Amino acid sequence: MATKTFATWAVDLKLSSIPASVRQAATRSLYNYIGCTIGGSNHNTVTKAHAALSPLFGPATSTLYGTGGKRTDAQHAALLNGIASHVHDYDDTHLGTIIHPTGPVASAILAYAELKGSYTGPEILCALLAGIEAACKLGLAVWPEHYDIGWHITSTTGSIGAAVAVGKLMKLNAEQMAHAIGIASVQVVGLREMFGSDTKSFHPGRAAQSGLLAAMLAERDYTSSTTALEANRGWANVVAGGGKPELEQYLDELGKKWEIEANAFKPFPCGIVCHPAIDAAIQLHHKLKEEGVEVDDIEKVAMRVHPLVIELTSKRKPKDGLEGKFSVFHGVAVGLLYGKAGPAQYADEVVQDAAVIALRDRVDAASDRTLAADETYVEVHRRGGENMKKHIQHAVGSMEIPMSDEQLTEKFVDQAAMVLGRRKAEEASSLAWKIDEADDVVSVLQKL
Amino acid sequence: MATKTFATWAVDLKLSSIPASVRQAATRSLYNYIGCTIGGSNHNTVTKAHAALSPLFGPATSTLYGTGGKRTDAQHAALLNGIASHVHDYDDTHLGTIIHPTGPVASAILAYAELKGSYTGPEILCALLAGIEAACKLGLAVWPEHYDIGWHITSTTGSIGAAVAVGKLMKLNAEQMAHAIGIASVQVVGLREMFGSDTKSFHPGRAAQSGLLAAMLAERDYTSSTTALEANRGWANVVAGGGKPELEQYLDELGKKWEIEANAFKPFPCGIVCHPAIDAAIQLHHKLKEEGVEVDDIEKVAMRVHPLVIELTSKRKPKDGLEGKFSVFHGVAVGLLYGKAGPAQYADEVVQDAAVIALRDRVDAASDRTLAADETYVEVHRRGGENMKKHIQHAVGSMEIPMSDEQLTEKFVDQAAMVLGRRKAEEASSLAWKIDEADDVVSVLQKL
Repeated sequence: MATKTFATWAVDLKLSSIPASVRQAATRSLYNYIGCTIGGSNHNTVTKAHAALSPLFGPATSTLYGTGGKRTDAQHAALLNGIASHVHDYDDTHLGTIIHPTGPVASAILAYAELKGSYTGPEILCALLAGIEAACKLGLAVWPEHYDIGWHITSTTGSIGAAVAVGKLMKLNAEQMAHAIGIASVQVVGLREMFGSDTKSFHPGRAAQSGLLAAMLAERDYTSSTTALEANRGWANVVAGGGKPELEQYLDELGKKWEIEANAFKPFPCGIVCHPAIDAAIQLHHKLKEEGVEVDDIEKVAMRVHPLVIELTSKRKPKDGLEGKFSVFHGVAVGLLYGKAGPAQYADEVVQDAAVIALRDRVDAASDRTLAADETYVEVHRRGGENMKKHIQHAVGSMEIPMSDEQLTEKFVDQAAMVLGRRKAEEASSLAWKIDEADDVVSVLQKL
Repeated sequence: MATKTFATWAVDLKLSSIPASVRQAATRSLYNYIGCTIGGSNHNTVTKAHAALSPLFGPATSTLYGTGGKRTDAQHAALLNGIASHVHDYDDTHLGTIIHPTGPVASAILAYAELKGSYTGPEILCALLAGIEAACKLGLAVWPEHYDIGWHITSTTGSIGAAVAVGKLMKLNAEQMAHAIGIASVQVVGLREMFGSDTKSFHPGRAAQSGLLAAMLAERDYTSSTTALEANRGWANVVAGGGKPELEQYLDELGKKWEIEANAFKPFPCGIVCHPAIDAAIQLHHKLKEEGVEVDDIEKVAMRVHPLVIELTSKRKPKDGLEGKFSVFHGVAVGLLYGKAGPAQYADEVVQDAAVIALRDRVDAASDRTLAADETYVEVHRRGGENMKKHIQHAVGSMEIPMSDEQLTEKFVDQAAMVLGRRKAEEASSLAWKIDEADDVVSVLQKL
């Protein structure tokens, strides 16, 4: 019954019955998605895909955010925006499954919305929620076996989430919705083996396309199986390696426990394990500034961190921005120097900057098994002054200390500014904050 | 090394070094593909997909065979032709893996060829072979675990085969080819759960698209992993359920043992288990005719068949063409009546025809465990005359008794005639037989 239950739940979902806190979480997720997509839009991975596929482009209905109004057909817009949303590893994270849920779902529904003409903010938000809840509940059902086998869970669940969301916008009936889920379920995209290559961010883009395709076929009564998810040889058993995942358990929670409320936003575009140290460094930056301490006065920086931080991010001499993401030393150095660790601080030039290197080389880290994974102690040793210490219990961006709307805005504007310039980035940010209430979402999207 | 080995082998492959028998097998596979694709082109499953996706169509470069010259962009042509090639369950079968290998590969390369302009028959044939060998060798490596888990092996290997083939046409270098394989490998499409629905034939179509997409991205140096197939979390381990498939064993055989020589063609558009009985019925039809026996003189027909035939195809009173495919009684009845069991004999009207029903009701089958799977005994009991018997050791279309070129031609023309009329079907058949030697394949494709 899982497929039909998901379908019926999505078809029946009404925004009016959704708690305000859930709507707010959806608004923030959508806002963060748009910032990340603009921020990634001029990345080499996106421009290569654009160039490769442009001979196939159909009617230019759907905006490629951050490109100054370029459009393409809905399928290719879903792909390219989906790639852009993920390419800086700066998107959202559903903490129960480490799914990045908004990329596949939003890329599909927004591209489709522009193809069809006109939708209101609440319609878009309701569809987004239906898709994200579907993807995350399915992810929970197959977690962790599915991820351990080697699947990239963002995209393997994302195609189904995208199908549900587009199907919701289309107002599919429950039977069509079940078929849309089925058609999406056979398109299982994404292997972890691709992490570190262009193909990693292809995954959410392709998932967006797959879901959009599935819904468009189902709208014409293209059939699949109405037990696609739960059958013996259906999606869940096949992708979880035969572990007989218990879908029912998560179905019962649909509309009661909202997964989007466990969706977190990355304050820094690097692996989550370094976030506590960077958070500490930024807070120390402000303290140093208050007290008028110059960077040259820093003799050394000593940290105690969870062992995983050393294991995953101990690159001592990163050569470029990508390597910088795997260097907790770099993150701490830019945090102390600039009070920020956004995409600008992971640009190749910054990673190669002499002042950054000089401070980075004075940062050291010790592994401490007694710490929680998101806990850290950072101590700045001053020449001729008292040491300054910071203890982080939970980093900003965690469930305990979520990013505020102001911090999300800063994140959006900082990354968008690198593509659009600051003034346009701020305009885009204002527009993006208001999408949830827009009478005509399409006219807003066309300005992004 | 598997990914790089596949890539290098495909890049280095030259038609001049390929044995004549292998080229002949490729020519027959391509010919059979075109017949099946024309035959399926007006099927409801194809027309629904066409209608659903037409708002997305790009430049109309690539022919939809059997439609009187309709074209669409290469991606959608690959999808729609791929669906059409499989929709009657009448395509080819690689006997070692039950992969239907030509659909995904040919749908991709022919659509791409029209996008780019001009290729010779030998270039197309060489690319087709590279793709089919890659798909079938990979299929062998993960067989049977992969299929048992629930994957539709035709499409899960087909996307990689299609990527290799398009990459070969593009003249990718070995590194790009490895990336093309990698990008294709993350797009794992097709669940057996969908058998019996429109989505079954979506699988080879989507595989064609996925492979085409992968090659087009790789041509622009879009990166994946150069150990995509063999890594711990690479394609083979993930899709075979962690069974550590031995890729090396099959890699060593590349270019030595050609899988396309184990590619068989279905003489009848129904499950292979009924083929021996239908073959017997057709041979008995000719014997009855020679002896002037009327159908009304047939008192009953008794068969002894392998138990699987009863298990899979014992529908006594099929209601329509689709159900007719699961009725060995129907197959035998039309074989005896018409001396044929092609798509025309599985039309709804024929399955519902009074004369067919009258004979079908007099056909009976007994399960006999002592028979080989492809062996059968059929006996026609005549009113007032001696019984006529036929023993089939291997059915036509098997490796032992392959379909002759004449039988392939009859199959092509019969199914194409249902779409195009007989005269145009015969023209298409003549053109399709000559593709392998064409100076300009594209000009031939545009006439199909």
